[in-house]
Amino acid sequence: METELSRKLGVEHAIFGFTPFPAVAAAITRAGGFGVLGAVRYTAPDDLKRDLDWMQVHTDGKPYGLDVVMPAKKAVDGISEADIEAMIPPGHRDFVRDKLAEHRVPELPEGEASGWRITGWMEQVARNQLDVAFDYPIKLLANALGSPPADVIARAHDHGILVAALAGSAKHARRHAEAGIDVVVAQGYEAGGHTGDIATMVLVPEIAEAVAPLPVLAAGGIGSGEQIAAGLALGAQGVWLGSLWLTTTEAELHSRALTEKLLAAGSGDTVRSRALTGKPARQLRTEWTDAWDDPAGPGALPMPLQGLLVAEAVSRIQKYEVGPLLGTPVGQIVGRMNEERAVQDVFDELTRGFERAIDRVNRIAGRPREV
Amino acid sequence: METELSRKLGVEHAIFGFTPFPAVAAAITRAGGFGVLGAVRYTAPDDLKRDLDWMQVHTDGKPYGLDVVMPAKKAVDGISEADIEAMIPPGHRDFVRDKLAEHRVPELPEGEASGWRITGWMEQVARNQLDVAFDYPIKLLANALGSPPADVIARAHDHGILVAALAGSAKHARRHAEAGIDVVVAQGYEAGGHTGDIATMVLVPEIAEAVAPLPVLAAGGIGSGEQIAAGLALGAQGVWLGSLWLTTTEAELHSRALTEKLLAAGSGDTVRSRALTGKPARQLRTEWTDAWDDPAGPGALPMPLQGLLVAEAVSRIQKYEVGPLLGTPVGQIVGRMNEERAVQDVFDELTRGFERAIDRVNRIAGRPREV
Repeated sequence: METELSRKLGVEHAIFGFTPFPAVAAAITRAGGFGVLGAVRYTAPDDLKRDLDWMQVHTDGKPYGLDVVMPAKKAVDGISEADIEAMIPPGHRDFVRDKLAEHRVPELPEGEASGWRITGWMEQVARNQLDVAFDYPIKLLANALGSPPADVIARAHDHGILVAALAGSAKHARRHAEAGIDVVVAQGYEAGGHTGDIATMVLVPEIAEAVAPLPVLAAGGIGSGEQIAAGLALGAQGVWLGSLWLTTTEAELHSRALTEKLLAAGSGDTVRSRALTGKPARQLRTEWTDAWDDPAGPGALPMPLQGLLVAEAVSRIQKYEVGPLLGTPVGQIVGRMNEERAVQDVFDELTRGFERAIDRVNRIAGRPREV
Repeated sequence: METELSRKLGVEHAIFGFTPFPAVAAAITRAGGFGVLGAVRYTAPDDLKRDLDWMQVHTDGKPYGLDVVMPAKKAVDGISEADIEAMIPPGHRDFVRDKLAEHRVPELPEGEASGWRITGWMEQVARNQLDVAFDYPIKLLANALGSPPADVIARAHDHGILVAALAGSAKHARRHAEAGIDVVVAQGYEAGGHTGDIATMVLVPEIAEAVAPLPVLAAGGIGSGEQIAAGLALGAQGVWLGSLWLTTTEAELHSRALTEKLLAAGSGDTVRSRALTGKPARQLRTEWTDAWDDPAGPGALPMPLQGLLVAEAVSRIQKYEVGPLLGTPVGQIVGRMNEERAVQDVFDELTRGFERAIDRVNRIAGRPREV
């Protein structure tokens, strides 16, 4: 499965796998895809260094990338996390406290910090991550929120690293192209995480036309080889898969209950909710998302306040596996994630399904196979 | 573009075009596709007879179909339209009146009935339509709301007519299969008209697996040959396009302002709203849909009350081309409907785009063209 972009990156199959887990990213790369490690968790540069060292050892010299989260808008200088905390209305804090109490969610043990903090979203943290990352031979730097700043793009290019950015509309994609990025990830409505309301089927060709000749990756709703073939038929130079890896044996969700929930969920069990970060992000629908989406409730705060408000609550819900509240970002393809399998097995099924789909469309087009 | 289903129906290309306009349906059939005439407007059997006579003359003996709207749930015997009218809360009538007054929408001339009436949705009307239709050599009978009643399916089969039904989830599709229908139209979130929230990319393979070996048509987000290739790669035996024909020269929208609005709209200018019928249906976003979707307003009534409530208002808005309120059901592909063209031109571009997409995926798959 070769495109101009996959050849440029030196990857066998134009399948890009985004994951927060180094073991998954490395396995995707070893299988012949392009593993992209999500860096949002790494608030301490040494932790990122440790995991990139590990990646170097476990990717057999094959290419991989890194995904950081740099907000498009610059934070105001001198604003601390405490200043942002102070902007959260007390009523919202009460709502969180009451919801957790209603479900008897225990407190975190003393001294245990909540896992996910707002800091991972702040520009300085992302810059610290980049200072580490540029010492490693990463081939692609992706940014999940808007275009990266011009100096970051320039620095990446100096290192021979391609820069990718996610877009949910042709307008966003054009802005990325003007900022000088190299690859646009067209992420449709059905994708997990932050997403707009245009479906992949419509979004991919629209963005491909808007930014041509820049290469576009199709993201959202892709979890089979048939869906990969569809994404490529739409004009993409590769596909970007995130959700599918969550139920691989290499993933470290640290919650058996969450894995079971993912395996049991159908395509209709997700919701685009502002509950997690303040911006619409697709995730498992839970009593937690329902509470934030309820018009009778206080409603989610804007980014970054909502993420800061719920960070500790989310850690507690995950740690104590509070079933009705337990969720995670995931796309509508969760409906086909029905068994735990090794990344290599998942990957083999993708490439086999792709070949089947090509056979199928060739039969329909009246083109007999002649290989 | 041949599949088992297209061969069974005797059609050259597995492209199914749904439209309320006989001239469009006939042109799709003549171009080598399968025109499906929407019958909801035909409350008088003689009108349907007249247009089917016309279709017979203008389809060169090639196959076409009919789409009726039979609600899955049987209406209670003896309930009249007046009884249903009486269920509408006065506050909702006031809301309609005030909204029209705010935009100075004139009354209809005396004696002029509103075009679209609830009656088109009632079972007896659909049965009268079928009494007419079965005298014509239609090849496919589609039902937009649930499975048709068992006796209708049996009667269609006696006439050698295949029965199709639209589905927005695997659960609905299984129910159709159990009812004995022959074809499932898997209609994704991005489609125009009534639609669920699962995107086409995810829905089509899910339904194809759920009802195999029944053939599935991919609907929603399909307006180019590349999107057709994608739909077929997902496992469909054909594609079902509705929105794309609205801006063809053969379409009779009877409103220049509406045509201009469609040509100007982007993929982000539609909304899934209950404003039109009481069930979520994708349509152009307007001040009218905003008013019904506003949590501060009275909200849409359930089907069939909402359709009855707004029928006259919609007629007035259309007749007097009241810009800010003027809308129509249409899918997200409205973003690529940017010029008026003849059906034949649109169709030729679809088949050319399909061939291009097949060339493209074959190159990516490393399969050189050998024809």
